[in-house]
Amino acid sequence: MAIQNELMQSLNDSETEIIQIRRYLHQHPETSFHEKNTSKYIKDFYHKLGIETKDCGDGYGFIVDIDSGKPGKSIALRADFDALAIQEENDLPFKSENSGVMHACGHDGHTAYMMVLAKNLYQMKNKLHGKIRIIHQPAEEITPGGAKSMIKDGVLDGIDKVIGAHVMTSMPTGSIGYHWGETQTGRADFSIKFIGKGGHASMPHLSKDAIVAGSYFVTALQTVVSRNIDPFDTASVTIGSFDGLGSNNAIKASVELKGDVRIMKESTRSTIHQRIETIAESVAEMFDMKVEIDYNDNYPVLVNDEKLTKQVVSSIESAEIPEVKQVFDCGPQDPSEDFAYFAQERPSCFFYVGCDPDDGMNHPHHSPEFLMDEKCLLVAAKGMGSVVLNLLNS
Amino acid sequence: MAIQNELMQSLNDSETEIIQIRRYLHQHPETSFHEKNTSKYIKDFYHKLGIETKDCGDGYGFIVDIDSGKPGKSIALRADFDALAIQEENDLPFKSENSGVMHACGHDGHTAYMMVLAKNLYQMKNKLHGKIRIIHQPAEEITPGGAKSMIKDGVLDGIDKVIGAHVMTSMPTGSIGYHWGETQTGRADFSIKFIGKGGHASMPHLSKDAIVAGSYFVTALQTVVSRNIDPFDTASVTIGSFDGLGSNNAIKASVELKGDVRIMKESTRSTIHQRIETIAESVAEMFDMKVEIDYNDNYPVLVNDEKLTKQVVSSIESAEIPEVKQVFDCGPQDPSEDFAYFAQERPSCFFYVGCDPDDGMNHPHHSPEFLMDEKCLLVAAKGMGSVVLNLLNS
Amino acid sequence: MAIQNELMQSLNDSETEIIQIRRYLHQHPETSFHEKNTSKYIKDFYHKLGIETKDCGDGYGFIVDIDSGKPGKSIALRADFDALAIQEENDLPFKSENSGVMHACGHDGHTAYMMVLAKNLYQMKNKLHGKIRIIHQPAEEITPGGAKSMIKDGVLDGIDKVIGAHVMTSMPTGSIGYHWGETQTGRADFSIKFIGKGGHASMPHLSKDAIVAGSYFVTALQTVVSRNIDPFDTASVTIGSFDGLGSNNAIKASVELKGDVRIMKESTRSTIHQRIETIAESVAEMFDMKVEIDYNDNYPVLVNDEKLTKQVVSSIESAEIPEVKQVFDCGPQDPSEDFAYFAQERPSCFFYVGCDPDDGMNHPHHSPEFLMDEKCLLVAAKGMGSVVLNLLNS
Amino acid sequence: MAIQNELMQSLNDSETEIIQIRRYLHQHPETSFHEKNTSKYIKDFYHKLGIETKDCGDGYGFIVDIDSGKPGKSIALRADFDALAIQEENDLPFKSENSGVMHACGHDGHTAYMMVLAKNLYQMKNKLHGKIRIIHQPAEEITPGGAKSMIKDGVLDGIDKVIGAHVMTSMPTGSIGYHWGETQTGRADFSIKFIGKGGHASMPHLSKDAIVAGSYFVTALQTVVSRNIDPFDTASVTIGSFDGLGSNNAIKASVELKGDVRIMKESTRSTIHQRIETIAESVAEMFDMKVEIDYNDNYPVLVNDEKLTKQVVSSIESAEIPEVKQVFDCGPQDPSEDFAYFAQERPSCFFYVGCDPDDGMNHPHHSPEFLMDEKCLLVAAKGMGSVVLNLLNS
Repeated sequence: MAIQNELMQSLNDSETEIIQIRRYLHQHPETSFHEKNTSKYIKDFYHKLGIETKDCGDGYGFIVDIDSGKPGKSIALRADFDALAIQEENDLPFKSENSGVMHACGHDGHTAYMMVLAKNLYQMKNKLHGKIRIIHQPAEEITPGGAKSMIKDGVLDGIDKVIGAHVMTSMPTGSIGYHWGETQTGRADFSIKFIGKGGHASMPHLSKDAIVAGSYFVTALQTVVSRNIDPFDTASVTIGSFDGLGSNNAIKASVELKGDVRIMKESTRSTIHQRIETIAESVAEMFDMKVEIDYNDNYPVLVNDEKLTKQVVSSIESAEIPEVKQVFDCGPQDPSEDFAYFAQERPSCFFYVGCDPDDGMNHPHHSPEFLMDEKCLLVAAKGMGSVVLNLLNS
Repeated sequence: MAIQNELMQSLNDSETEIIQIRRYLHQHPETSFHEKNTSKYIKDFYHKLGIETKDCGDGYGFIVDIDSGKPGKSIALRADFDALAIQEENDLPFKSENSGVMHACGHDGHTAYMMVLAKNLYQMKNKLHGKIRIIHQPAEEITPGGAKSMIKDGVLDGIDKVIGAHVMTSMPTGSIGYHWGETQTGRADFSIKFIGKGGHASMPHLSKDAIVAGSYFVTALQTVVSRNIDPFDTASVTIGSFDGLGSNNAIKASVELKGDVRIMKESTRSTIHQRIETIAESVAEMFDMKVEIDYNDNYPVLVNDEKLTKQVVSSIESAEIPEVKQVFDCGPQDPSEDFAYFAQERPSCFFYVGCDPDDGMNHPHHSPEFLMDEKCLLVAAKGMGSVVLNLLNS
Repeated sequence: MAIQNELMQSLNDSETEIIQIRRYLHQHPETSFHEKNTSKYIKDFYHKLGIETKDCGDGYGFIVDIDSGKPGKSIALRADFDALAIQEENDLPFKSENSGVMHACGHDGHTAYMMVLAKNLYQMKNKLHGKIRIIHQPAEEITPGGAKSMIKDGVLDGIDKVIGAHVMTSMPTGSIGYHWGETQTGRADFSIKFIGKGGHASMPHLSKDAIVAGSYFVTALQTVVSRNIDPFDTASVTIGSFDGLGSNNAIKASVELKGDVRIMKESTRSTIHQRIETIAESVAEMFDMKVEIDYNDNYPVLVNDEKLTKQVVSSIESAEIPEVKQVFDCGPQDPSEDFAYFAQERPSCFFYVGCDPDDGMNHPHHSPEFLMDEKCLLVAAKGMGSVVLNLLNS
Repeated sequence: MAIQNELMQSLNDSETEIIQIRRYLHQHPETSFHEKNTSKYIKDFYHKLGIETKDCGDGYGFIVDIDSGKPGKSIALRADFDALAIQEENDLPFKSENSGVMHACGHDGHTAYMMVLAKNLYQMKNKLHGKIRIIHQPAEEITPGGAKSMIKDGVLDGIDKVIGAHVMTSMPTGSIGYHWGETQTGRADFSIKFIGKGGHASMPHLSKDAIVAGSYFVTALQTVVSRNIDPFDTASVTIGSFDGLGSNNAIKASVELKGDVRIMKESTRSTIHQRIETIAESVAEMFDMKVEIDYNDNYPVLVNDEKLTKQVVSSIESAEIPEVKQVFDCGPQDPSEDFAYFAQERPSCFFYVGCDPDDGMNHPHHSPEFLMDEKCLLVAAKGMGSVVLNLLNS
């Protein structure tokens, strides 16, 4: 396919540009919903090229439409651009200049390769069919996420399919991972406050001991996963915060617990929600206390469309990209992703681009030492580019 | 008894002085181990009267010896002078001038009546037998307490018996309460840190959840009182602090719990100490964690000597003090007292002087609204004075 | 006092008779509410002496009235005659002939000394004042006890005071123990059934696991004593039976727990009752189960009247009984006693007669090796006799 | 394929015979390891046809070899023949004649179709290649299962692959289900005895309460699944028996718990084994008790060979059996199967033959009302027959 060769060649020529953009973004990170300068920087890139952008959603998100002028499919490509409230501990020439903020999840890379891929696709748009919409999304890291309000604002109007990708230090550079069906966990979080009655430690009968209530709650909570969920299903329930700071000799009047839920089926989600509320209420009743429950179901399970995922895989495999050594089913992934909202609306595929720097170090996502092998960026651009060509032109 | 009448009369004449001193002390409170000005104020009072004082112990404590020059018993009278780290909420002309510090337990009253009683006894010392030692003790409120180092420094050398008194808003003004045998609880406090391994909430199998360990510990801890203590004995075990503050979606690596123990028998104390350590260690083993235990046995059970207490009661009753309406066995008391250290060394009696202002309000000790009926001060001085005369001169 | 000497002398002469009767009763024990032959044997003893008996209450209980014909107090003396469902393991010439039934609590001794004391008092009734009622009570060992229906049937009509005694292997033979105020624990028992849903062990989400519910209940139950009861009060809550027998690989549909409560104050009783029901109901709610609660408050706290107990003590002490070496305050006692029902109705005193055989063995009550030193029987008869004379004739 | 048509035709002709045999077996069930008459009945069937049988393993199992005399693959077909200790509640002309024993899992059907299939294959053995070994296995239902000792006795010597099938009321008649990889759970069972010290309910401090220990164990046990297992893995841990029967007013000296474990990975198995032992030992340490743990890892995870399973599926699909309406991936199955031992030794496939009678009733396996649609038997015979022909002759 001539067009495939042309795109691959121009991406080869763009590798330095991708890396420069990525490094600029890395050096100037902004946290979720505060990506004002980041958004402006990306838009300026397009505007200098004469490409229009269009704001979308509650945050700093926007879209770029690449219209071939010919009939065909309309596909959206999504790249997120927010950073995390983490202090970078890497020693890099382009280390974060913003104290306490860091691109520790690779969104700088996502945005950089996408910008350059978009530029290249825009320049060859006359040779394409259908339309491409680039979704530059803010605030993937923080509930409620940036995707939700962009969808509400029409970002998927007229769109047939959505494709996204994430760099992964857990996969070797040169590999591309995929999975279909339930692919990333859905999430809920909650806080529960038990309100008893304080008093002197030597007179427990005059108090209602909130630390005791909170502790029995935590032990009872273990039964949600151990007894109420099908062993073949996926679920975790964690109390990540037990705020019961007090003094030795006073009985604590109230405690506040915060927790996290992960699931792979929406039916599991509702079971857990109901069980946690029931257990919290019955523990409060048990100890004659009040309880305040604030439970938020948020990111859905990310469900990759089987047919589309198979197309994505065969597009990449048939492109015979020299930098791609392996395309493999990487199985389901623990973290949650608000790309899941797109996948609820349209057949979607979210795939993974290995970026392990293979330096003998451990660089988990969200670590202050997170580091990607920048070679992954060309892999991502070529992989995504091949998918676009295959979906639009065949 | 002529001397009895003389003392009672002179105390009647001293009531205003007692109240003035008490108000001065109330207005200028200092916290435990920081009573520098308080101590100086009391010493100045004695020095102006030509009475010597002698420093004793690690803090600002001192003694005043009143020697009759004649053979006889040697008895010590103890008054404590420290205040609490509490912001006074009473609206009084002599409200605390020291922000965040308050005489909220009545030690101002203890010291005021004792100073004036000492002055009166000093002035009639030629008519007495034996010796009286006034112990002005600092730091009753905070472990390790002021008594311990005074004893080490010889405060009880040559002393036969020790008497002390505490004002009590829970008893009517005009009443004197007593109890013998185990009278106030002994105390221990502890902190326990469970050290697991943090991690992402979605991957519990890679972590060791310290909040879970701490919670199971709290539930197992309930069995100490419910199963290991004779139902006829007294014990309480309280976790007053569960420091497990964290975020929703991270598994907590460690938690620190702080607790308090009250007992009425030293055998109960050792059972509880051993049980708490065993439970903490086995919970750590259960969850494959480390545990750090810091356990401190401190104030002993206050054991009033039966014979001496009966003498104290009959001294007060036979004195026919008009302000004393009732002398009654008030039963054991919940709080702990470092007077207990004196009672471990010598036959001792610690009795209670009702000071309920009977104004329809609730004035528990250690409350920012604690308030005594100042009439209790003359009751205390006369009661204690009668006891001294009876013990020395009969 | 001539009459005192006369009674003591005639009791000395009756010691062999007491022992013979006790051995007969020991050899022919009958369990609570089934003491048909025992009752007949005792009545025959009286009838042969021309003394009338009168049936009273729902069981085999009866009374014997000894009327002096002169005005005065009316006092009741109570002796219980039931045995236990225990197989005797002692090797005695008069070992129990009834398989699986044994006088393992000493009621044979209570009845034997009382019969002979009654005979002696009857024979000297003209020298007495007032009236004596002997209460031969059945079924002390089993709820609801024999006392309750005898009281309903009028056993205390016209009676001023009630006296009872119990032999005690925990006290040396020759000693008499007493206590006033709360003296023996009150009792409640209960059974709680959690009804969930059975199923295959590999599919917990389709079941409601009753063993899990029962276990969380037991752990939560520990907080009743540890948190809801004043540390100065007495309370125990025990689950003595957890009936959850099943197979490895099936989830248990229901479990039944049985428990026991001991208290020393009626206010404690109601707190515990309410707490246990609340905890059971909230555990059922927690696990979406049904719960059946059967809670029975039964034997009250046995409260000895202070004044009467002091009279009992001084009666015994002033009688200068040679066999009585010690009269002492033995403190409160763990077990429960349905004599407590009499003590609810009239000023009463229940005292203890040491019967330790001092043979280096351990003979706790209700043990299959329970054994009394028969010398205690004369002590009991003389002690009780002295009390009667003192109460009636002085 | 002529041979395929021939086999299908002869099986059509044999349907009545299969059903007759199945009904005979159903009427004469025998429990695991006691299948003496069942075994003899099956052997007689073969012997009458002049087919040799050869005993194998510790129980009543045996094999039948069908040798084509020509080189080729050697495949084993396994059918189990034990029944369950269940009282049949179906009203059938061929209802179980053995009280309390029932073919409630369909092994009667497995054996019946296999006997007739074997007869047919034997009769056309000259047209086949390689060898077929029929494994008539006893005792599938009870640990350690019949497979283990047959393997030890050489049942798989010279065998290349093993195929088995199970009828399933949860799948429609006419359907064949398959899955590859982890297909049925592995299993462990255990019993844990906590040995404390009994005593009177009113004196808990003198006892070590085994019901309390057992209950805390059950609550702590919930953390194994909730915290120690990867949420993407499968695990269940159930306490199916809590033997703590006792009386209200005595503290229980010991309790025995029995439990069951299901897993889908051998790594999960070892984690759970280690965690259960650690928790049991630390609970014993916590309450100063002894603990006896008897833990048995038994049936492995049944892992179907992917390649072989695909061959099985394509064999059945390509056979175009009119009675087979659907061949589908039924996903992993909860129960455990000792066919798993064969699958550990050779590439194996265990597939499922729907037998839902579709009568609106609920007929779960191991229910006293279990009932199969006998049409499934011809499906099983034809499906298995097609697989054999495909594996041996192509």
